[in-house]
Amino acid sequence: MNETHDVSLESWVGSATTRETDFPIQNLPFGVFRHRGSRETPHIGVAIGEEILDLARCAERGLMVSLPEAVGEACSVPNLNALMALPGAQRRELRAVISGILRMGSAQHREAADLLVAQSDADLDLPVRVGDYTDFYASIDHATNVGSMLRPDNPLLPNYKWVPIGYHGRASSIVVSGSPVVRPAGQTKAAEAARPTFGPSAMLDYEAEVGFYVAGSNALGEPVRIANAWDRLFGISLLNDWSARDIQAWEYQPLGPFLAKNFTTTVSPWVVTSEALEPFRVSRAARPAVDPEPLPYLSSEEDRERGGISMTVEVFLSSSRMRDEGIAALRLSRSELASLYWTPAQMLTHHTSNGCNLAPGDLLGSGTISGPENDARGCLLELTWRGRDPVTLPTGEQRKFLADGDEVIMRGRCHADGAVSIGLGECRGTIFPSRS
Amino acid sequence: MNETHDVSLESWVGSATTRETDFPIQNLPFGVFRHRGSRETPHIGVAIGEEILDLARCAERGLMVSLPEAVGEACSVPNLNALMALPGAQRRELRAVISGILRMGSAQHREAADLLVAQSDADLDLPVRVGDYTDFYASIDHATNVGSMLRPDNPLLPNYKWVPIGYHGRASSIVVSGSPVVRPAGQTKAAEAARPTFGPSAMLDYEAEVGFYVAGSNALGEPVRIANAWDRLFGISLLNDWSARDIQAWEYQPLGPFLAKNFTTTVSPWVVTSEALEPFRVSRAARPAVDPEPLPYLSSEEDRERGGISMTVEVFLSSSRMRDEGIAALRLSRSELASLYWTPAQMLTHHTSNGCNLAPGDLLGSGTISGPENDARGCLLELTWRGRDPVTLPTGEQRKFLADGDEVIMRGRCHADGAVSIGLGECRGTIFPSRS
Repeated sequence: MNETHDVSLESWVGSATTRETDFPIQNLPFGVFRHRGSRETPHIGVAIGEEILDLARCAERGLMVSLPEAVGEACSVPNLNALMALPGAQRRELRAVISGILRMGSAQHREAADLLVAQSDADLDLPVRVGDYTDFYASIDHATNVGSMLRPDNPLLPNYKWVPIGYHGRASSIVVSGSPVVRPAGQTKAAEAARPTFGPSAMLDYEAEVGFYVAGSNALGEPVRIANAWDRLFGISLLNDWSARDIQAWEYQPLGPFLAKNFTTTVSPWVVTSEALEPFRVSRAARPAVDPEPLPYLSSEEDRERGGISMTVEVFLSSSRMRDEGIAALRLSRSELASLYWTPAQMLTHHTSNGCNLAPGDLLGSGTISGPENDARGCLLELTWRGRDPVTLPTGEQRKFLADGDEVIMRGRCHADGAVSIGLGECRGTIFPSRS
Repeated sequence: MNETHDVSLESWVGSATTRETDFPIQNLPFGVFRHRGSRETPHIGVAIGEEILDLARCAERGLMVSLPEAVGEACSVPNLNALMALPGAQRRELRAVISGILRMGSAQHREAADLLVAQSDADLDLPVRVGDYTDFYASIDHATNVGSMLRPDNPLLPNYKWVPIGYHGRASSIVVSGSPVVRPAGQTKAAEAARPTFGPSAMLDYEAEVGFYVAGSNALGEPVRIANAWDRLFGISLLNDWSARDIQAWEYQPLGPFLAKNFTTTVSPWVVTSEALEPFRVSRAARPAVDPEPLPYLSSEEDRERGGISMTVEVFLSSSRMRDEGIAALRLSRSELASLYWTPAQMLTHHTSNGCNLAPGDLLGSGTISGPENDARGCLLELTWRGRDPVTLPTGEQRKFLADGDEVIMRGRCHADGAVSIGLGECRGTIFPSRS
């Protein structure tokens, strides 16, 4: 069987062969879908061009008989959790089989063609039942920008370059792209006010992140060594960590963000696997300067040589008026996943270094992905410097923070020499008025 | 049917009629058990004296035919989640039926006697599949003590009396009483050191808390009004929020505690229901002085009149040498749940005030329960004032923080005039050496 990333590989699905598609045969991301508007039990599918290959039906029809029975069973569950529990070798076998089914000249072409569903005819569900959700803070530019607003003389805290800083988020309020985002209410206090007031947030923001889904398990008390950490990463999605900055400023001392973040987190529906990301792994040379050297438990040759992931992450904004006037969404930022100070393997290893147990389907957010350039700032807090420099939209409207009706659209795409580009699809969310 | 708290009620289970039992017929807490050493699917049971009434078998034998079918089904699941999803009225009906089965003169006495399992013959499991775990910081004495160590001039932060401060914890590492607690390793940095080191925590601590389990659901975006919050509390357990103070000091800025806490959280196996706690609800007069008045969304007449819970929480320590020498565990502290600044209903309402969705089986920790007295400090950090004043054990051993082999035992008990006292049972954990 050919290497699944080979540039010469082509699919018999026509829409997968265009240069612009996020989902060529080299990608093969997993998601969970239903026929549009139906209430049927969702099926696992694989995005290919503008289609979805129904994996549950592939298993049912015997297209995966060459694989261990557990793999077919895992494809027949209404979420990706069982796939995420499979050993890495079985995940790779499954990828090879799907690649074989979808490639030009496949003996299963005709049978599989019957098992395609147009993405335009499908509703995509939340792909994973997330057990625990952790959010990191791995962009040094984001940490420096936010720190500058609070402590101009000393923006980066002393622990930043030693500790991959993270905190626990809320799993129950994770929703899939396209779900409404209701403006949260909460306590806020103006600096000069004697007392706080309760009402809708006036400083609602997005944060452009990616989420890493965990594969496999480690028992409580058993750390994952960094040499084994990459194998514990099932794949990646876009993630929008919606944030209410005014609630955050008043509540976050001393235990960190809580209601400012836990009202909604949006993820994109397709999970691009670690295997698909292989051609886009980059060495330390492509990442921010590492100094000091990390402690030994966060260091390995593989992580130095191939620990980063090169991916551009873009954020677009479309106001209600822009949509009414037929104006395309405005790109607000373009940043690079490889600009994170910490790698996904370092984050995962650090998370388990105290014995914390990670389970299949747990989600690790990267934190806001910002770069050193002004147009690489991954949230409005940074882009408008806490409202000082509003963004002007094509309609002339101005934004310090998000208004009701605004839609935020994130896209992610990987490029590398000698590889076919792949994408993550979209992560969308529209702000609805507060119900309070 | 008689009121289930009536002092005149007695059970035909002899061990439930002693004054010292935690589990008289007025209590009726739920848990999940297996016959000792077996690998059978766990059953839901109710503690009564030194016995457990097997609820799954009660349902099977038709002892609950008077109840809606959903109630019997919820009793046949291997955790309490389905019970926690029932409407409040059905939970109260179930309590009345169980009370009827177990009371003196019950027509079902003979049948039910066959469905008793001695607690000494049972292994108790984690009672709930916890979806999300949130930990609060509701003891003003704890917050003041900890704040004093960091900011002697200004111990309590300005938001404390306005915001029921909380943060998200880790659900996967919640374990039941009796499970081992492996000393975590992590990064620590001495104040005078140039760089951190990685190794076993040298400042391992416990925190004496209670946990509130959530009943029912609210949809994402729909806050729970304080008038409805008490009905969303299924019940209460003891909770030990094990904490590595040296890891915490180095990691917690700016996003709060993470690896210092998420290695293990221990809960007691019995969940004492809100219905059983009714006689122990207390008014604001029994709680710390409330000033300023909370914002309207955190205020109701019911919460002022009956928002607190009167319960003593005790912590005992037994070193390995004490056990070898047959010396009883030493009581370290005795504090009072009613001394919390915030009520459970206020915590739950605040948590959902931004639209955050809480699901059946979610767990809300109170935060360390300390009181104003020196012997009412609910963790070693406070008791030894960060190691300055070590505790001396009966063997002459000293403790600034926990040593390997130390067992921490928590107990909780409710007393009120005109009510039969009830207890929470025990929450135990023994420290095992670091595996790093």
